[in-house]
Amino acid sequence: MEIVKASLTLIPTRDVILPPVTSKVLKYLIMSGELFPFLRDLVSSRDKHKPLFISNLGVNGRRLVLMKPVHVSRGTALDAFISYPLRPDAITPVNGVFNTPYGEFQVTLNSFMVLDEFQPPQGNVVRVNFVSPVLLSSMIGLPPSLNPRFRGRGSNFTIPSPGLIIASAYKTHQGLTRRFDDVKSFKLAVLVNALSKVINFRMRPVTVSLGERGDKVRKTRGVKGWIEFELPPEFRGTMKYLMVGSYLGIGRSRGIGLGEISLEVKDLGASSKADLSGEQEPRS
Amino acid sequence: MEIVKASLTLIPTRDVILPPVTSKVLKYLIMSGELFPFLRDLVSSRDKHKPLFISNLGVNGRRLVLMKPVHVSRGTALDAFISYPLRPDAITPVNGVFNTPYGEFQVTLNSFMVLDEFQPPQGNVVRVNFVSPVLLSSMIGLPPSLNPRFRGRGSNFTIPSPGLIIASAYKTHQGLTRRFDDVKSFKLAVLVNALSKVINFRMRPVTVSLGERGDKVRKTRGVKGWIEFELPPEFRGTMKYLMVGSYLGIGRSRGIGLGEISLEVKDLGASSKADLSGEQEPRS
Repeated sequence: MEIVKASLTLIPTRDVILPPVTSKVLKYLIMSGELFPFLRDLVSSRDKHKPLFISNLGVNGRRLVLMKPVHVSRGTALDAFISYPLRPDAITPVNGVFNTPYGEFQVTLNSFMVLDEFQPPQGNVVRVNFVSPVLLSSMIGLPPSLNPRFRGRGSNFTIPSPGLIIASAYKTHQGLTRRFDDVKSFKLAVLVNALSKVINFRMRPVTVSLGERGDKVRKTRGVKGWIEFELPPEFRGTMKYLMVGSYLGIGRSRGIGLGEISLEVKDLGASSKADLSGEQEPRS
Repeated sequence: MEIVKASLTLIPTRDVILPPVTSKVLKYLIMSGELFPFLRDLVSSRDKHKPLFISNLGVNGRRLVLMKPVHVSRGTALDAFISYPLRPDAITPVNGVFNTPYGEFQVTLNSFMVLDEFQPPQGNVVRVNFVSPVLLSSMIGLPPSLNPRFRGRGSNFTIPSPGLIIASAYKTHQGLTRRFDDVKSFKLAVLVNALSKVINFRMRPVTVSLGERGDKVRKTRGVKGWIEFELPPEFRGTMKYLMVGSYLGIGRSRGIGLGEISLEVKDLGASSKADLSGEQEPRS
């Protein structure tokens, strides 16, 4: 199944107050039938790992994912994207001024990109940027045979590791094929963690408001930052899962724009590793 | 086997230039027979996971682990500690002025503490502070059956997770009993990661010089910062491994003072978790 990423610009026609989770603007435009009406069923579906991503709104390359509503001046160019499975009517022109509970926006379509997962970028080193907070479930790393015993345990606030990232991207990929293989995702989590070489990282926890319910603010915790690591030779093929993840996100709450990642792939060659970790044991 | 932690103050009698890995000062004093002469064999032993920790020198609660030699003014109080197995002659008075290749130091013994691992602190939440950079081997998380196939792979520069920390502390504990169980350390790494709840963390990678060899500076990468997490009920007993880790360190290069940790144990109770992660699934 191919995936398409539709990139949009939204410009408020007057000053607006955006909700903390700014993906709600695009979600409203889909659900009200103004934009991409064929996605309504997918948006409201309760399926796990569904092949859909609605990004938060961005300004100057930073996504607005916040704890409080935010004021945005009229005329500010906000960027966003929606990713979904390619279908005959999936690529449609989008242009117009639309009203939402969050204000009025002029919406322009900038590009459609179609993911070719059979042409993953060449390289053994990948930097994964967490463009919005990522929430990777710790339970991916539980042996599936123990799932019944520990149902409902674990946490979605975890420290992203190469294995958790690859296994989460694999889950997203499974959402396309609708064939779920918990043994493979468990093995990926464990083996990629054991055999990868972390090159560098920056990570910090962030708290995200998910909106109000009654007089309580629903919050969640995620991680922003990036990690650069070398994929083990045996797992270079997992780059295609990361590619899918760069369209559809990874981890929990992708439907509201969390788990957005971007990739930078390089080829460092094995020899350069010695400079990075003097104490490392020699490769056999 | 009981462990003792001997805390010392070292005051340079003149301005000194300390090496980047400041634990070398104490190591020299042991190897030259001036301090704790009974530790010489242990210091020079090539055993893995040996029950010995020589800390770096600290000023105002910060350990000096650096990329370049550092100037310290005479009269500055430097603190340090050595941990080792308790033995009849292990607790000896220490007081005097000693010469080293790094300058002359007045050394005073402040305290001996004996670890009682059968009295671990009560609580389900632990904050592990990385007092010096930690280097946790990714290979702890490899199923032991695959060890022969992947020998020499993986990395010691990893992102500390609850499972890696507990499994590394267990390895340190095994160094006391000299009974090694790679299946148990693997299981701890995997299951503690899957079932723990991270509460908060701050982490940053640091580069440490290990000294010069010819005209090349040997470097390694580690992680500073801290992580706070809730131990799963099934693994509360692992607190005793962390206790041992707080005396003997965790991970690689403990012999030169890397992997020093301190602990803060709290009891938060299960209900408070809901505030920290609004999206979390209910506990069964």
